[in-house]
Amino acid sequence: MEAQSVPTTCVIPPEALLKHWQGHRRLTRRTIEAFPEDQLFSYSVGGMRSFGELAQEMLGMAVPMVEGVITGDWKPYAGGKTATRDELLQRWDESTERLNSLWPRIAPERFGEHIVAFGQYPGLAYDLLLYVIDNEVHHRGQGYVYLRALGIEPPPFYERD
Amino acid sequence: MEAQSVPTTCVIPPEALLKHWQGHRRLTRRTIEAFPEDQLFSYSVGGMRSFGELAQEMLGMAVPMVEGVITGDWKPYAGGKTATRDELLQRWDESTERLNSLWPRIAPERFGEHIVAFGQYPGLAYDLLLYVIDNEVHHRGQGYVYLRALGIEPPPFYERD
Repeated sequence: MEAQSVPTTCVIPPEALLKHWQGHRRLTRRTIEAFPEDQLFSYSVGGMRSFGELAQEMLGMAVPMVEGVITGDWKPYAGGKTATRDELLQRWDESTERLNSLWPRIAPERFGEHIVAFGQYPGLAYDLLLYVIDNEVHHRGQGYVYLRALGIEPPPFYERD
Repeated sequence: MEAQSVPTTCVIPPEALLKHWQGHRRLTRRTIEAFPEDQLFSYSVGGMRSFGELAQEMLGMAVPMVEGVITGDWKPYAGGKTATRDELLQRWDESTERLNSLWPRIAPERFGEHIVAFGQYPGLAYDLLLYVIDNEVHHRGQGYVYLRALGIEPPPFYERD
């Protein structure tokens, strides 16, 4: 008796979500690069944080969230604070590699499990991962306004390669 | 003979992606409401579009994208331009209902199919749907900067109910 073909109700396979995120992360990297060195950690609009600080927050969430989803162990970001654009870009690239090597270690059934991220944010693992991605998109959009206000053209939003 | 349990490699089930999106859409609605009527269609930073125009773009993408994913037929948004906050919120609510009724009509296998949205944007259906959601998050983040620059506290980013 042949196995019936199983109708999948899957929207996004795990490897596609990583690809999607890394596409966003390439765009965020270009947004960091677009800031003049002397504005990255100082300029903002409306009393908000600088784009350097926002990018630092993104780093602080990305690898720690994925490590926690895998292990259930919640640790703060190990990369520390950065003070220059080059250092920030270097940390960014380190996180890129780390995410690529961690991602396949997320057990497929884990995505739909209830977890409590960092001991204080309850939710389904995929919702918490999407939160980290959305938070990056949200703050990068704010970086676009800073760049426009500085008279600098931001990188194209649709370009993710 | 019992059917074997099938290991799912699904990250996000279809109904969860709609729920995720509608959570974002509730937050975007609150962001529209946070703008004073006289600033919604006029205020911006750095020569960008007003938040009213950005929200209009979101409306222009949401229902037409989902309709196109379902039918393969690509039509522009039927709601027309809005000029007041109340009218924009009304269109927003109409799109909310329309998305809820359309979504279950997306065939599960459709999410992973190659399509050409609006006859010009090629991609996998789920990537194109994520693009529409990301575009909303991106521009809403910009609305947050406009609000801060106007001295107005934006709605909390993590609140999606």
